[in-house]
Amino acid sequence: MQDKIKKILVINGPNMNLLGSREPGIYGSDTLESINVKMKKKAGETGLDIEFFQSNHEGDIVDRIGQTDAGGIIINPAAFTHTSIAIRDSLSAFKGRIVEVHLSNIFAREEFRHRSLTAAAAEGVVCGFGAASYMLAMDVLTGS
Amino acid sequence: MQDKIKKILVINGPNMNLLGSREPGIYGSDTLESINVKMKKKAGETGLDIEFFQSNHEGDIVDRIGQTDAGGIIINPAAFTHTSIAIRDSLSAFKGRIVEVHLSNIFAREEFRHRSLTAAAAEGVVCGFGAASYMLAMDVLTGS
Amino acid sequence: MQDKIKKILVINGPNMNLLGSREPGIYGSDTLESINVKMKKKAGETGLDIEFFQSNHEGDIVDRIGQTDAGGIIINPAAFTHTSIAIRDSLSAFKGRIVEVHLSNIFAREEFRHRSLTAAAAEGVVCGFGAASYMLAMDVLTGS
Amino acid sequence: MQDKIKKILVINGPNMNLLGSREPGIYGSDTLESINVKMKKKAGETGLDIEFFQSNHEGDIVDRIGQTDAGGIIINPAAFTHTSIAIRDSLSAFKGRIVEVHLSNIFAREEFRHRSLTAAAAEGVVCGFGAASYMLAMDVLTGS
Amino acid sequence: MQDKIKKILVINGPNMNLLGSREPGIYGSDTLESINVKMKKKAGETGLDIEFFQSNHEGDIVDRIGQTDAGGIIINPAAFTHTSIAIRDSLSAFKGRIVEVHLSNIFAREEFRHRSLTAAAAEGVVCGFGAASYMLAMDVLTGS
Amino acid sequence: MQDKIKKILVINGPNMNLLGSREPGIYGSDTLESINVKMKKKAGETGLDIEFFQSNHEGDIVDRIGQTDAGGIIINPAAFTHTSIAIRDSLSAFKGRIVEVHLSNIFAREEFRHRSLTAAAAEGVVCGFGAASYMLAMDVLTGS
Amino acid sequence: MQDKIKKILVINGPNMNLLGSREPGIYGSDTLESINVKMKKKAGETGLDIEFFQSNHEGDIVDRIGQTDAGGIIINPAAFTHTSIAIRDSLSAFKGRIVEVHLSNIFAREEFRHRSLTAAAAEGVVCGFGAASYMLAMDVLTGS
Amino acid sequence: MQDKIKKILVINGPNMNLLGSREPGIYGSDTLESINVKMKKKAGETGLDIEFFQSNHEGDIVDRIGQTDAGGIIINPAAFTHTSIAIRDSLSAFKGRIVEVHLSNIFAREEFRHRSLTAAAAEGVVCGFGAASYMLAMDVLTGS
Amino acid sequence: MQDKIKKILVINGPNMNLLGSREPGIYGSDTLESINVKMKKKAGETGLDIEFFQSNHEGDIVDRIGQTDAGGIIINPAAFTHTSIAIRDSLSAFKGRIVEVHLSNIFAREEFRHRSLTAAAAEGVVCGFGAASYMLAMDVLTGS
Amino acid sequence: MQDKIKKILVINGPNMNLLGSREPGIYGSDTLESINVKMKKKAGETGLDIEFFQSNHEGDIVDRIGQTDAGGIIINPAAFTHTSIAIRDSLSAFKGRIVEVHLSNIFAREEFRHRSLTAAAAEGVVCGFGAASYMLAMDVLTGS
Amino acid sequence: MQDKIKKILVINGPNMNLLGSREPGIYGSDTLESINVKMKKKAGETGLDIEFFQSNHEGDIVDRIGQTDAGGIIINPAAFTHTSIAIRDSLSAFKGRIVEVHLSNIFAREEFRHRSLTAAAAEGVVCGFGAASYMLAMDVLTGS
Amino acid sequence: MQDKIKKILVINGPNMNLLGSREPGIYGSDTLESINVKMKKKAGETGLDIEFFQSNHEGDIVDRIGQTDAGGIIINPAAFTHTSIAIRDSLSAFKGRIVEVHLSNIFAREEFRHRSLTAAAAEGVVCGFGAASYMLAMDVLTGS
Repeated sequence: MQDKIKKILVINGPNMNLLGSREPGIYGSDTLESINVKMKKKAGETGLDIEFFQSNHEGDIVDRIGQTDAGGIIINPAAFTHTSIAIRDSLSAFKGRIVEVHLSNIFAREEFRHRSLTAAAAEGVVCGFGAASYMLAMDVLTGS
Repeated sequence: MQDKIKKILVINGPNMNLLGSREPGIYGSDTLESINVKMKKKAGETGLDIEFFQSNHEGDIVDRIGQTDAGGIIINPAAFTHTSIAIRDSLSAFKGRIVEVHLSNIFAREEFRHRSLTAAAAEGVVCGFGAASYMLAMDVLTGS
Repeated sequence: MQDKIKKILVINGPNMNLLGSREPGIYGSDTLESINVKMKKKAGETGLDIEFFQSNHEGDIVDRIGQTDAGGIIINPAAFTHTSIAIRDSLSAFKGRIVEVHLSNIFAREEFRHRSLTAAAAEGVVCGFGAASYMLAMDVLTGS
Repeated sequence: MQDKIKKILVINGPNMNLLGSREPGIYGSDTLESINVKMKKKAGETGLDIEFFQSNHEGDIVDRIGQTDAGGIIINPAAFTHTSIAIRDSLSAFKGRIVEVHLSNIFAREEFRHRSLTAAAAEGVVCGFGAASYMLAMDVLTGS
Repeated sequence: MQDKIKKILVINGPNMNLLGSREPGIYGSDTLESINVKMKKKAGETGLDIEFFQSNHEGDIVDRIGQTDAGGIIINPAAFTHTSIAIRDSLSAFKGRIVEVHLSNIFAREEFRHRSLTAAAAEGVVCGFGAASYMLAMDVLTGS
Repeated sequence: MQDKIKKILVINGPNMNLLGSREPGIYGSDTLESINVKMKKKAGETGLDIEFFQSNHEGDIVDRIGQTDAGGIIINPAAFTHTSIAIRDSLSAFKGRIVEVHLSNIFAREEFRHRSLTAAAAEGVVCGFGAASYMLAMDVLTGS
Repeated sequence: MQDKIKKILVINGPNMNLLGSREPGIYGSDTLESINVKMKKKAGETGLDIEFFQSNHEGDIVDRIGQTDAGGIIINPAAFTHTSIAIRDSLSAFKGRIVEVHLSNIFAREEFRHRSLTAAAAEGVVCGFGAASYMLAMDVLTGS
Repeated sequence: MQDKIKKILVINGPNMNLLGSREPGIYGSDTLESINVKMKKKAGETGLDIEFFQSNHEGDIVDRIGQTDAGGIIINPAAFTHTSIAIRDSLSAFKGRIVEVHLSNIFAREEFRHRSLTAAAAEGVVCGFGAASYMLAMDVLTGS
Repeated sequence: MQDKIKKILVINGPNMNLLGSREPGIYGSDTLESINVKMKKKAGETGLDIEFFQSNHEGDIVDRIGQTDAGGIIINPAAFTHTSIAIRDSLSAFKGRIVEVHLSNIFAREEFRHRSLTAAAAEGVVCGFGAASYMLAMDVLTGS
Repeated sequence: MQDKIKKILVINGPNMNLLGSREPGIYGSDTLESINVKMKKKAGETGLDIEFFQSNHEGDIVDRIGQTDAGGIIINPAAFTHTSIAIRDSLSAFKGRIVEVHLSNIFAREEFRHRSLTAAAAEGVVCGFGAASYMLAMDVLTGS
Repeated sequence: MQDKIKKILVINGPNMNLLGSREPGIYGSDTLESINVKMKKKAGETGLDIEFFQSNHEGDIVDRIGQTDAGGIIINPAAFTHTSIAIRDSLSAFKGRIVEVHLSNIFAREEFRHRSLTAAAAEGVVCGFGAASYMLAMDVLTGS
Repeated sequence: MQDKIKKILVINGPNMNLLGSREPGIYGSDTLESINVKMKKKAGETGLDIEFFQSNHEGDIVDRIGQTDAGGIIINPAAFTHTSIAIRDSLSAFKGRIVEVHLSNIFAREEFRHRSLTAAAAEGVVCGFGAASYMLAMDVLTGS
């Protein structure tokens, strides 16, 4: 039904730059760089264009979503998942496909992390599988 | 009671840059640029100075409110309406007059959009009239 | 898109007859009569028909809304804003345009005044500007 | 156990006078008059006395309940269902039988319409069947 | 501090006209007439003017409060205690003294009767003593 | 608008098999068997096919709804009214007409029985009239 | 219906010993001693026995209620009004008559003071009239 | 860290047997059978053993989880997601890996579907991608 | 007051069949079988008839309660404690004595386990003592 | 696992001294003395030391818990069950075993008695069996 | 602005006497005595008078606050922080300066410890630094 | 236990740059510059390195926390205290010591300022003492 996606934008929210050293008991020991490398490799295999964007700034993420020419977005809004209506609105305005991902299982953490303000604007959610959450999201968008 | 306002600062919050293409069923087909042009024209007719500021960054909006020498602010905080105590506090610190505006009628949308954290720091609110909400706010501040 | 409005019905809810003497710190010193005079004058200038109706009775307001042949309604439901589903329903049944107004900024008052049951049935809301709230509502309906 | 009812009072709350033209998608295209005609015909067939009362005024409804000599009441409190403790109290003071009816299924509408303040004072509720809700209520009170 | 009160207005809300026959287990067997007679007698003894007003109509009560020239009001808002912001607002606009009374102890009844919207606008409350609640309220206003 | 219904499935939820001996102060002394006999007789008079199903198992009720070839369902979900999203979903998937019934008036019982999860999937609700609730539901579905 | 009361126990809760100097804007400038003197005088005039008990200790108040041979209790539970189930239970166990009093109008203060845990165990409540609240309570118990 | 999984048990909850004909606007037009065929094919390619179990009975699902010798479970609890602590507890007792899946995006549906009681007992969740949700879950468990 | 109980029915809810291997940190290492053996032995010593019933099916438990001829029930509803109104209703319909038991202290676990829907239909509750909870319940019912 | 307990401290909270005369419909006609006599007798039979402490003072109970050299505590916190974090904290600091008991079934009483602040600090709870609740608690602590 | 404080009263609430042995994981291993010694030493160095008061009795604390002639209070209300309006009121009546302290960080503990009823009556709060919290509070009051 | 801290990073959140002119009734007349000067002087006396960072941007604060090599952080998150999970998460990821400070007593302000999302990630909180809050925080981190 939808055109084949040619470019994917991968967005990571606040503190994701610290991955690997940040609370490894919760988030694991993979670094964000290592996850990106895997995604890039997978994208390369199928001729898919992929861009990575990490920011601790809600506004930068809204800016980027509003400007991208990608056909699909994989977004881990991190802490903004639970607080940002601005990102939800920018995702609603985006015309391509969207998958929300989380490294950890948000349902198994503090009560305030069970709610996602942003997920309603996505097509679906993958959470709890560490780096694999991102790879699965790629599979969703590439239809593999 | 208050001095005549000589300059107005018009602030638009997150995703307002997308106006016209963003969910036109809710927000209409006017672009932000077209609204600004109308306001500028109206301001020009009465010798009023007017500045426009749009940002997807809560912090930029707080910065701007704290620095402006305008006598009045027209603000559409968009998604920040419902989440930003920082903007509320910056508006409370501002010494001029403030009108909050919305394109859509926030009372007729999702439950979480009925609440305004920022409105308590304004003199009043105009919502639901699309571009006209802004023109009415100008009328409030210029006393016409 | 909509036909030009030829008649406006202005409805004021409970205790609005006391305006001027009632808690002037909140509601100002304008009387309802003085506001109506201003509106009548403005209407006269553009050949618009205008009717005024004040009642402390929810039922009278519902009756009036159900019977009017006006093309637009400006309503300040006062206390009924927060309690009357009957008025909300009568406004929903009304086929013309509706603007809800308030003298004071309901967001800056007691918690129970932040909620409006009636506003969802209106096109939009203007609140916080005293008598000017009504004049702005007229501008909305007359498109000036 | 109870004496046979000789007279029924049918009460319709706010905006029910607009039936037929009011939001037909929700309330159907029957007019209140057409429903009353059907009820009158049915009553006539069994020698039952029947009175009709519609009011947009909570107080009129309370007055009428307090004064009636009917043995049974069929009431569609409409918007007052969700807001009127006064009608609930007058129904509790009434010594005959009471059936609450609604044209629409209140459980399938907005959250605030799921609650009935008045139903606890009735013997039971029939809702969702349009005009038929009233006919069924007659059957309850006449035991047919 | 306050001038001696010369006239008292006694207001009784919805269903109070049924007193004596209405749920005597809760409200006792005194009729409203018998209570008024006692109050009139007491007032007569001290040369105090006293007026009685009962209505099932919220709007009539608001009207009366707005028009009275009495120096003090004794009000039993009955069911409106828990639902009427309009009466609360009219009491707030009244410049004399106000005592809220209830026949029954509202704290010992259903949860929804524990809250009084109107009491905040009164000087104080007397509840639970049947007819005596009114006599005590008179004592408050006359300083005896 | 809808085809005439040829078969009705009557579903009774948990503990309905105990009717007659179970808390007769609330549920009356009719047995489920006696109610079914009355329904069968009424159905026979109009050539309507009728089936009865009682189960204490939520899953059995979901199974049955999913498998039935009836054109209409009369369901008293009993305790499942307040807890079963599974039955709600199976009713939503059913293509015929649905009436929810209750022996007792659920609005006059414990707070947790005021809410119906299942009713939103039905056309309407009849509650509070004991065995008669079922007969009225038949009238709804047969249009008599 | 009840025997004439021969002895009254007046109980004052925490911080009432500071009356007169404690937040006079809220509680007035009467001292507890001066209130007691007035009550003693009034009691003396009718041969009524009266005892006074003030304590900042919830347990002492529970002890005293459990031991008293008075026929009536006038209690101002002060802060314990909103927190003490123990005092509520001791009042429920008391076999005589009980009037709860407050100097200030609890409905016009902070939200958490609107609720009374203890009042449900009393016959009624008098609040908002300063020292007069106590005198009215005496009138209730002595039937004057 | 974990042994390679040799057998997967796929559990589908209530009304999933109706897939394809049930509310296709929400759930799509795939049948459960067609999804199972795809999963079986994929499993066959890697020598993985796979079992399918659909039930409308919470108890059957709990039974099956307690008895299985599979090393991993893919579960779509459907309506039970939001109501079943029993299934949550059985999943917590299971010693293998667990992935919760949903065809639709539960965050974009009714409020009561945003909460998952069962997800806290799973490793993670995949929702919103129709049949693909299941295939991704297989990828998680097989590490492909 | 009550006849001596001759037969006791012991009901265990979902996942209790897994006892011993299921989360031993919470539930201990006793198996359900070992608890039953102890109860059987104790029953044998006093000539008491005892039956054991474990089910993961809410409906089976409701069935069994409705059919039993036992004079007393000891029930550990497990997860159904917090979700089953159906079991609560079946217990309310049961005419003998009922004791609810839990292995763990439900007040010291997750918030959602603090509430018991079923306990209100029992005579009392014993929780937190592992297998001993059952033995104490037997003592209650046998009066030893 | 734990050493055999040599001394038990039995603590009874507010109003328990009134047992026998206090609301016998709820609490039964046993006096606290009669319960203590039974416990003392039972203790004597096994050479167990037992102490009794009743107080209406939260502070005295906290004092006693902090000072006791008993190996086990049986506590009926009565009204403090629902309000005292201080007793909860003192129980948490106590190093021996703790059983909370109640005469009545707290789940079958007013909503505010369903919650126990103190129970989370105990090993378990026995409630609803009158005097027997205490005897069962002794059995728990003595392992009989 | 304020006079130099000559005497400080240090108040410690329930279970603080157990410090050092009580849950050292939360409260540390300092005893209250050791903290007092440090404070006394510090006070001595600047000629400040200091008094220590620990009580498990809410009433004793209220008494002491009402009687003290100190110019400043350092209070650790412990469990009473979350439950005592009586102490809040006594602090509000106190005319000197007040600092609330806690050994642990109340925001990082159970939800019910996040709320402080008493803090609103203090000048400020120091929490989370163990014994140092007290020393810092002294610095506040002495201005060092 | 912890190494001596060699560098402290002082972070001030939104609108703190306006200190001195912003709502001086709440925040006092000290400027942020004047507070920093005092802190710098104190740091200089003990050879401590100190850095100051103020931003109205949540993202800048998250960035800075993630990059700093300081051993301790003093943070006044201002409005972000109540809304930012991103800052909470960045503080949780920081390996040094953290003290949260506020100029005003957050417990004595609007309800929505009583909650701190960030404080749970800090060691403790100092609030209410104006500029002194910062100096005390320095004392905590330097152990003086």
